[in-house]
Amino acid sequence: MNVMYGIDIGGTSIKIGKFLNNSLIEKYSIPTKLNADPYVIINDIKDIINSSLKNDILEGIGVAVPGPVKEGIVLGAQNILWKEVELEKILKETFPNIKVKVLNDANAACLGEWYFGSGQKHPNMVFITLGTGIGGGIVVDGKLLEGKNGSTGELGHIVIYPYEGRKCTCGLNGCLETYASATGIVFTGNKMKSGKLTTLNNYKELTSEIIFDEAKKGDKVSQEIVDYTSYHLAVGIASICNTLNPDIVVLGGGVSKAGEYFLEKVKRYFKEHAFYSIKDTDIVLASLHNEAGMYGTMSTLLNIR
Amino acid sequence: MNVMYGIDIGGTSIKIGKFLNNSLIEKYSIPTKLNADPYVIINDIKDIINSSLKNDILEGIGVAVPGPVKEGIVLGAQNILWKEVELEKILKETFPNIKVKVLNDANAACLGEWYFGSGQKHPNMVFITLGTGIGGGIVVDGKLLEGKNGSTGELGHIVIYPYEGRKCTCGLNGCLETYASATGIVFTGNKMKSGKLTTLNNYKELTSEIIFDEAKKGDKVSQEIVDYTSYHLAVGIASICNTLNPDIVVLGGGVSKAGEYFLEKVKRYFKEHAFYSIKDTDIVLASLHNEAGMYGTMSTLLNIR
Repeated sequence: MNVMYGIDIGGTSIKIGKFLNNSLIEKYSIPTKLNADPYVIINDIKDIINSSLKNDILEGIGVAVPGPVKEGIVLGAQNILWKEVELEKILKETFPNIKVKVLNDANAACLGEWYFGSGQKHPNMVFITLGTGIGGGIVVDGKLLEGKNGSTGELGHIVIYPYEGRKCTCGLNGCLETYASATGIVFTGNKMKSGKLTTLNNYKELTSEIIFDEAKKGDKVSQEIVDYTSYHLAVGIASICNTLNPDIVVLGGGVSKAGEYFLEKVKRYFKEHAFYSIKDTDIVLASLHNEAGMYGTMSTLLNIR
Repeated sequence: MNVMYGIDIGGTSIKIGKFLNNSLIEKYSIPTKLNADPYVIINDIKDIINSSLKNDILEGIGVAVPGPVKEGIVLGAQNILWKEVELEKILKETFPNIKVKVLNDANAACLGEWYFGSGQKHPNMVFITLGTGIGGGIVVDGKLLEGKNGSTGELGHIVIYPYEGRKCTCGLNGCLETYASATGIVFTGNKMKSGKLTTLNNYKELTSEIIFDEAKKGDKVSQEIVDYTSYHLAVGIASICNTLNPDIVVLGGGVSKAGEYFLEKVKRYFKEHAFYSIKDTDIVLASLHNEAGMYGTMSTLLNIR
């Protein structure tokens, strides 16, 4: 059978998915070697593919990396300590005569959700991934936007509070990421629980999961933290929608696992902060979770003839 | 000769441009009848066209309106008191067998700047019109974005200050428009000059032009107002660029006439507030001024076969 592989290189692991007729039939995960030569990483991936391939015919490989990508070139990926890497060229050398494609990890997850997940192929979709940081991807007229430097969808760095805002790792103040990422939620949590009677005090160290769980169980302070987070995320989404007027906004990443409880609050605040013409924008949760990147990289191969 | 007309319906006047080979060869302006039947307005336009046409052959008419447009239907235009109007249908009835096209006015100006002005046909361009309010348009891969409801580029309603922000006419708080539109600048001016020694006190009523002029002449308070405005505009532009990563941002509208003096400040604050991957985005002034809408509506006809 003809098969394709969708690969998602992350800061801690490399996810490798084998696809037959657009279905994920096998999954592998190997640790990411940091600061390694890209050839070494691609060879590790090649070993997995070769052993899983058996009698199937390799038709294509799509690879996602945690950094901006422009025309097959990774412009840098801090998490895995890469500078500029001509990754598509390396892939073509390692796997000659098959389809190959390289893209940014958030963009890959965006495409995955668009083709096979919650995006449902709406012409215009915004994908926001709420993890340690915040990233995103944008589909317009069914096409992923790349932008001048492969940096569309840096939605975590939309500025919410230019003056009083929290210091962001990027050097700026008041980026959306400092309020609505997992890191931002924990920051809010530690600040808001201080001196209060709350079940959060039962935990030595907070995580965004703990905060959402305690909020759902009825802890008032945790509920306030979720409210504060939802409010800021909604303001950010409104700004993005005022710019792009998409059909649908899909929320992915670890934080989105908080589910409908979180989504309902975000939607309520969004309606309060959206210009009238975008109030009916659909906001939904992602459905492919950490498989979105594999689906997305595989999906980019579908349009290559 | 085959000629086309680019028409820009505004709140006070209707601008009608006659184009030969992409050049504006004649201009007319008539007052806008408010609350008038769209058929009446289109007939007024028809009269002007018929008298200016002489021996030329009418090839196409593009019309811009101050409201969102989706697939030829105006979804509403508050300034001229229109509800939903099937304007493209009316144009086809009034001018049978020629090319017709209807689009939003900010989008029209955007396209005009893209084809014939400062946009220079860069694949990805953001156009921001700084007038009484703030509007905009977005070109991606050489195509104007329309969005779900014909409302892409509502850049005036990007939220800069969700809490402490100024009240916007749209009902929200802290929209970019309340800081960086002509109205916003006058609001800032009246607030900042209060109790201060400034040449602005020589004027009974402030305008944004007066403030820019006095700033250029050396008035310290006026310079602070321009600084404050540039700062907020730059933060808004940074958020837009983090979303879209365009090649170029073009600033149009009355406020942009403040020229290089204003632009330099905006660019400086932008570099301070831009995520690293977008710092090299070009920001330039529009060049077609109030002819941009006519150029833009005409340009949409060029792709109709």
